[in-house]
Amino acid sequence: MLIIAERINASRRGIRPAIENRDTGLIQEEVRRQAAAGAAYIDLNAGTLPADQEIGGLCWLVETSQAVCDLPLCLDSPNPDALAAAAALCLRPPLINSITLEPQRFDGILPLLAESAMPVIALCQDEGRMAVTTKDKIELAERLVAQLGAAGIGSERIYIDPLAYPLATDSASAVAALDAISDIMVRFAGVHTVCGLTNVSYGLPARRLVNRTFLVAAICRGLDAVICDPTDGELIQALHAARLVAGRDAFCMDFIQAFKEGRLG
Amino acid sequence: MLIIAERINASRRGIRPAIENRDTGLIQEEVRRQAAAGAAYIDLNAGTLPADQEIGGLCWLVETSQAVCDLPLCLDSPNPDALAAAAALCLRPPLINSITLEPQRFDGILPLLAESAMPVIALCQDEGRMAVTTKDKIELAERLVAQLGAAGIGSERIYIDPLAYPLATDSASAVAALDAISDIMVRFAGVHTVCGLTNVSYGLPARRLVNRTFLVAAICRGLDAVICDPTDGELIQALHAARLVAGRDAFCMDFIQAFKEGRLG
Repeated sequence: MLIIAERINASRRGIRPAIENRDTGLIQEEVRRQAAAGAAYIDLNAGTLPADQEIGGLCWLVETSQAVCDLPLCLDSPNPDALAAAAALCLRPPLINSITLEPQRFDGILPLLAESAMPVIALCQDEGRMAVTTKDKIELAERLVAQLGAAGIGSERIYIDPLAYPLATDSASAVAALDAISDIMVRFAGVHTVCGLTNVSYGLPARRLVNRTFLVAAICRGLDAVICDPTDGELIQALHAARLVAGRDAFCMDFIQAFKEGRLG
Repeated sequence: MLIIAERINASRRGIRPAIENRDTGLIQEEVRRQAAAGAAYIDLNAGTLPADQEIGGLCWLVETSQAVCDLPLCLDSPNPDALAAAAALCLRPPLINSITLEPQRFDGILPLLAESAMPVIALCQDEGRMAVTTKDKIELAERLVAQLGAAGIGSERIYIDPLAYPLATDSASAVAALDAISDIMVRFAGVHTVCGLTNVSYGLPARRLVNRTFLVAAICRGLDAVICDPTDGELIQALHAARLVAGRDAFCMDFIQAFKEGRLG
């Protein structure tokens, strides 16, 4: 289970000023904590800065993170120029977060992928339309895999995010995403699925409970990567237990190891 | 989601002596606590008492429970005589826990069901063989539904338990049960599924975490009844969140109500 650590995001409290003020200490502490908690990638997002400052902010985040951590980075922006500038600084191939089927975004980001071996998160989204039903999500996943494949991006580099919309406005939104995950993992050999957790609980109370419950359900349907906060102990406990229940922890070895390390509470 | 409250079981610490000593106060307190925590049925089990004392013990439990609680009871024994004697005392139709395809047990319990409107838990188990794979579980479920149906027991009275075996000895055991639940709920219209949670975590650390994670996965696959301890707050939180994620809580109303009542931690 690939954990993409989400805490260094300019939309989170304290992160935007830390980027604007080039607060190296705060960012590096976030990097270290998330790495220690089991992250595979450190997501970096400077998206709420003024447009002319995003590129500089993201590039500073890359260099600041790499100074203290050997993990690969996840470059989080819809802006092809920001992604290209930041990717050029990366010491290890970054995960590109994210491409969609919106023509300008797809065509803008594709060259960066075609010329490299970088993996990419591909959202089930096209021009303006939200993919609400499982059927819609699968159709968009199919187009993403086909169009990325045609450009030479192999299945194993593609992380499809079916997009889970808020349960507060649609009680069937999580099921639609879960069914899509299950179907994508069966239908497209080698392709990965990934999901963020916070959308699904938007507008509800007890959001962390909802987030980890959705994660358990998604892991049991085949999800193999997640964008989350690895420093949320209860979430990571749920993740370990979900891998176990999903039959993805041979001889329960990871679960027992996590217990021995005191990570199961 | 039907909660069958499991705490009054002679195999649990303190319960067997309470039955032997006819400790009315202790049993009635367990009944009250479980009813207040959201139980739909109160399970009663005197199975670890010597064979000649089980019937008396179970009948005493029925009368003791009914004296303080209006909920229906779940009579938990493989012994047809114990079930018949206890059922005769019940003021509301009890849930019979449980029948299997083992000929002596099936034939022994069937008359009690055929002559009444009682619902029944039917285990995916026949003479000596453990149903380990999903295919085996489905085959046994099919035979149970057919044979019970032939005796006039309608689908809506049948709660199939696919039996989830310990993950500690078979990493695929939970998946086999989950896939069976999903398939049974689609294949047999009107039939319910039920599961205990403690088997699956047997021999592992952090058992309550494993139990509630399995429950989340099972609810998301269609499980509509569970044998559990409703006084386990984290378990009930997971249950509420799982119903929400599974799209079984229209407009999130139950979840928000549980939050308002302070049940979500």
